[in-house]
Amino acid sequence: MNLELQDVDDLCTGAAFLGAGGGGDPHIGGLMVKQQLRAGRRIEIVDPDTLADDALVMPTAMMGAPTVLLEKIPSGEEPLRALRCVEEALGRRATATMPTEVGGINSTIPLYVGARLGLPVVDADGQGRAFPELQMETFAIEGVACTPMGIADEKGDYATICTDDPHRMEWIARGITIRCGGVAYFSNYPMSGAEVRRASVKHTLTLARRIGHIIRTARSRRQDPFEELEAFIATTSYGAARRIFSGKVVDLDRQTLEGFTRGAVTIAPDRGPGRPCVITFQNENLVARAGGDLLALVPDIITVLDVETAVPITNETLRYGQRVMVMAVRVPEIMRSPAALRQFGPAAFGLDEIYEPLAL
Amino acid sequence: MNLELQDVDDLCTGAAFLGAGGGGDPHIGGLMVKQQLRAGRRIEIVDPDTLADDALVMPTAMMGAPTVLLEKIPSGEEPLRALRCVEEALGRRATATMPTEVGGINSTIPLYVGARLGLPVVDADGQGRAFPELQMETFAIEGVACTPMGIADEKGDYATICTDDPHRMEWIARGITIRCGGVAYFSNYPMSGAEVRRASVKHTLTLARRIGHIIRTARSRRQDPFEELEAFIATTSYGAARRIFSGKVVDLDRQTLEGFTRGAVTIAPDRGPGRPCVITFQNENLVARAGGDLLALVPDIITVLDVETAVPITNETLRYGQRVMVMAVRVPEIMRSPAALRQFGPAAFGLDEIYEPLAL
Repeated sequence: MNLELQDVDDLCTGAAFLGAGGGGDPHIGGLMVKQQLRAGRRIEIVDPDTLADDALVMPTAMMGAPTVLLEKIPSGEEPLRALRCVEEALGRRATATMPTEVGGINSTIPLYVGARLGLPVVDADGQGRAFPELQMETFAIEGVACTPMGIADEKGDYATICTDDPHRMEWIARGITIRCGGVAYFSNYPMSGAEVRRASVKHTLTLARRIGHIIRTARSRRQDPFEELEAFIATTSYGAARRIFSGKVVDLDRQTLEGFTRGAVTIAPDRGPGRPCVITFQNENLVARAGGDLLALVPDIITVLDVETAVPITNETLRYGQRVMVMAVRVPEIMRSPAALRQFGPAAFGLDEIYEPLAL
Repeated sequence: MNLELQDVDDLCTGAAFLGAGGGGDPHIGGLMVKQQLRAGRRIEIVDPDTLADDALVMPTAMMGAPTVLLEKIPSGEEPLRALRCVEEALGRRATATMPTEVGGINSTIPLYVGARLGLPVVDADGQGRAFPELQMETFAIEGVACTPMGIADEKGDYATICTDDPHRMEWIARGITIRCGGVAYFSNYPMSGAEVRRASVKHTLTLARRIGHIIRTARSRRQDPFEELEAFIATTSYGAARRIFSGKVVDLDRQTLEGFTRGAVTIAPDRGPGRPCVITFQNENLVARAGGDLLALVPDIITVLDVETAVPITNETLRYGQRVMVMAVRVPEIMRSPAALRQFGPAAFGLDEIYEPLAL
């Protein structure tokens, strides 16, 4: 399937929804992809189930603080260079690229790379949402080698990292990213087609596009977008989505720290003096609490939407006074195993709460 | 010329002298080299003037905070791996290695690498002393490409950095070093034999060995080691050395910050209440002041010696109560050009004083 121009905005919107507040500004990535399509380049999306076993898939993405990305615009060469680093280290050429996560810019970087290099883009990723750290991948849980990893910045500098420990890869790459000014582009977890099928969350580009389509069109079809989202997601491998809070942003603590955007947003309830909802984030939203109650918890997706349009609001664009709806989405089963929860469950973020999958 | 076991201690002592308080603990490097010689391996020292023009020389060294090195012992594989990174990036094998600087461990790492890999070690370096940062090299001043750079840690992790800017190389590699725990091993500025001849400070391994020999034997020959050092250095390309202060260490401010050992040592004069000498360091000693007077200034070498034995005291082993002699050594002419002073003169360290070469 070739990606069409009108798909790009829907895909960006849906990716921001699944990105749980992180994943980087979808606007910039969308512009990069549309520029390629307008220049006549094709972007072929391929189903992971049709990949040759010996395909060589090299994921591509951005890492760093989304707050920084807003001001530090990519040159466009960075992810290509990062992929070339992996090719040179392996002595083999990529036959496809794919996302490492679903989230604003990180769903679009592989589309851009695919357009630029003429590589198909696999309709799958390694997080089924966005997470802040590089070891938080189903690829790692399923034993895919995490390196060679290529990393590049907009100044033309780049590096290739080799380690067999995904946590060490994250630690070293984050150090480089900080020194690159807080944002860098990378390629890691090079995989065979067989590994992609075993180790990825499938069909998440398609999912993002459909979610974006609902958000764009529901009102004109005189439907409630939140109801439509809940009904649609119930039919997917995610299986459950639910509105957990609505209100007004009344406080925001947001800092760019150690290569991440960290903080918390406080949302006061729509009516009366009730308990506010506090959402804590490290790039992505991790936990939503109201008073003593736990409303939703990582790895389930917590996403903040404009209460009128249902357009997702990523954490770097939160501001005082926004009227918002908070939704939670249960993650697919591959992301709820004991091994998965060790990699990106509450304890991986220093949270004490016990994860229970979102109930309807 | 093959390095003999009895040369190693002299070389370490002399390298610590020229290392200006930095360069890393010579004890550890000396042990590594002696272990190789005792195991029957040879270490061939070659004169840069005899190198083939198309030789491929890959310098090897340690970087980071010497305070950390004291507790974080190398596995011995790190510098070999760093050199292999450069070989793989260039697609060519090294025909020799060499020091990047003269200084404790960094004069011995290439000897160890030479022993392990059967490579000759060139009798030259890129600093004629030790400096804290990777762009502070005569190699950079003379236009040698600074990367590909390999960097490796004791955990088996490694990376290859590519940039054409030596300051960016330093910045990114320092970030990696911090994430590796404060010490890492590297290879950079791969050079042809012709480049080594043009861009290096020559015969500094030999110089270090001779200085170490004077320090070890002067007392038994009933000579004053300080007088002998001054007389000997006057005959070399350095041309001038002078005692600038003696006294007792009465204060020490030493921190491990941003991948460096930073601080200042205060030395009270031997007799009476006179002005103390304050030496400020970033790994290496940068400036020695007493009251309003400037005693010595980077790039000239400021080195602190035990007042009885003339054994150099590196900054990570300074402690209260040590009785010391401070000597200053003028650097060779290649290191005093306007281009050289831009790279490692006072302003490069944020110092306001104007450099005047040490006068006798």
